[in-house]
Amino acid sequence: MSIIVPVILCGGSGTRLWPKSRPERPKPFIPLVGGQSLFAQTVSRFPAEEGFAAPLLVTGAHLRVLVEEALEGRQAALIVEPVQRNTAPAIALAAHRLPEDAVMLVCPSDHHIGDTDAFRAAARAAAGLAGQGHLVAIGITPTHAETGYGYIRRGEQLDGGFAVERFVEKPDPATAEAYLAEGSYVWNAGIFAFTAGGFLSELARHRPEMAAMVAEAVAKGSEADGAFVPNAESFTRVPKESVDYAVMENTSHAAVVPAEMAWSDIGSWHAVQQAREGDADGNWPGERGELVDCRNVMVESDGPRVSVIGLEGVIVVVDGGEVLVTSAAGAQKVGTLKGAKGE
Amino acid sequence: MSIIVPVILCGGSGTRLWPKSRPERPKPFIPLVGGQSLFAQTVSRFPAEEGFAAPLLVTGAHLRVLVEEALEGRQAALIVEPVQRNTAPAIALAAHRLPEDAVMLVCPSDHHIGDTDAFRAAARAAAGLAGQGHLVAIGITPTHAETGYGYIRRGEQLDGGFAVERFVEKPDPATAEAYLAEGSYVWNAGIFAFTAGGFLSELARHRPEMAAMVAEAVAKGSEADGAFVPNAESFTRVPKESVDYAVMENTSHAAVVPAEMAWSDIGSWHAVQQAREGDADGNWPGERGELVDCRNVMVESDGPRVSVIGLEGVIVVVDGGEVLVTSAAGAQKVGTLKGAKGE
Repeated sequence: MSIIVPVILCGGSGTRLWPKSRPERPKPFIPLVGGQSLFAQTVSRFPAEEGFAAPLLVTGAHLRVLVEEALEGRQAALIVEPVQRNTAPAIALAAHRLPEDAVMLVCPSDHHIGDTDAFRAAARAAAGLAGQGHLVAIGITPTHAETGYGYIRRGEQLDGGFAVERFVEKPDPATAEAYLAEGSYVWNAGIFAFTAGGFLSELARHRPEMAAMVAEAVAKGSEADGAFVPNAESFTRVPKESVDYAVMENTSHAAVVPAEMAWSDIGSWHAVQQAREGDADGNWPGERGELVDCRNVMVESDGPRVSVIGLEGVIVVVDGGEVLVTSAAGAQKVGTLKGAKGE
Repeated sequence: MSIIVPVILCGGSGTRLWPKSRPERPKPFIPLVGGQSLFAQTVSRFPAEEGFAAPLLVTGAHLRVLVEEALEGRQAALIVEPVQRNTAPAIALAAHRLPEDAVMLVCPSDHHIGDTDAFRAAARAAAGLAGQGHLVAIGITPTHAETGYGYIRRGEQLDGGFAVERFVEKPDPATAEAYLAEGSYVWNAGIFAFTAGGFLSELARHRPEMAAMVAEAVAKGSEADGAFVPNAESFTRVPKESVDYAVMENTSHAAVVPAEMAWSDIGSWHAVQQAREGDADGNWPGERGELVDCRNVMVESDGPRVSVIGLEGVIVVVDGGEVLVTSAAGAQKVGTLKGAKGE
């Protein structure tokens, strides 16, 4: 089996994790679960002895310094996008920089995976299918009727996975319940494996204009200071589209590898709370919290002491002079706050 | 009718209003309801044109500077206690500094009274009864089955009030409900009227040792910098006891004047919340709060923005680098927090 090249997409953002996640220090670069940042956890997931090549990172110009700092000297190739064009063009850039038969394992840089062994096993299965010409999604076996993710329905069994029957949009609660009960749906986690040549070939088939424009941006691109930078003028004209819409939902070679790997996209403070292990009362007071008569209360503070009395299911985040107090459900709306919008 | 001398007791403290109330700037001196501090509201309650003499303030040495600042040039006599000995000795000090027939109107300095006219009417009725030889409590007509206050049961009708049948301790919830339903109980608000001579006479009858020791501390006391200071050595030997225990519960001349005057002892952040007028959702965001999907949420902040999502009945107080988040019921326990205890 050919070596697997981790392609790590680091686009930044994460306004729902405000006030800790901010434009100048976004979500991938802050420690949210365990001592390491999500970015550091991601790059640590691919040691050479487990059969992974050094990762190829695709990031934005505004994040380059943060990325290089967070690499802490680890070997990695870097592609710096002059503007961000969503995941399909970002992955196409990476594919152009790799041999045709290299297996790309595309991963976001801001997810948490609790079971690394299960992840690597799924990655190897996906790489195997990719080597046979499939474009493979690693799908997460649902643990609850989540409405915040897209789902993938599996079809006929393949060697190490399944053909994809179809991709479906984020469901309403009743539909999510039905998917969970039905048993053949997994969450679309945005983790994919395919060969570089296979991806570019399918991109050219389903998005010929995008494929041509990215190829032009690469041809006119330049290597500088250890990073590859596509031509800005060309790349700016590339349409914004996700890999799901541009390729995965259109290709007739889609496959899925289901995995149970304690995955979370850490998409909100409630997701952070769920990924952390609380005490016997479900509380997570951190170093600065004093909790009295509380259950399932999480405190995150960059300094000020936080005293909480008589509450259940509440999250308090104090950072950079901002105070956020939210219910678990309310955590989804953090991005709409004035502070999170920079107002 | 003789003139009424407001005797304002200013002992400080207020740990249940931490983190805004602190040892160096306790409860009476912070604006909690309306723009003025509770102390300023108290001294403003007694204008000369309404028949009140300049107030006589009894405070501790550690609060003298705060008291003098908060007076803002208003005329007032000052007694500075070298140590604090609870309310009976404090009132006895004041009584010694007044003519025998002066009517003292004893008030805490840290209560809120929403209806000043009703208060003054009750004060005049109480003063009238005091002039007839009664020791009078102004009792608050209960609005709910409160367990945090002592109660007074009224007896036979007098001119402008009632004889006291008995004082009762803070009740349990069932007893409080019974008091409320029964209709002849009022809350003991710690507001009293009596003549100076009448009070000292009853103190001598029921607490002869305390009366003698206070008299000695006054005789050996000194006037300095516009304040009277009882002799420290003598006053330190005076036992600590409240006026309720030492005199009011023992005298056979106790009377009570019921009043409906939108009174609150502002005994907790929940009491502050109740004394303030919220918006249509019961929210009080203040100047620094952004509330989304909230009901009955109050935010008090000395600077940092406070964003709250999806909560009901929660109080957030940010002050001096401390963050407090509590339920209404939890507000009673604020004094037990490490921060409030200065740890």
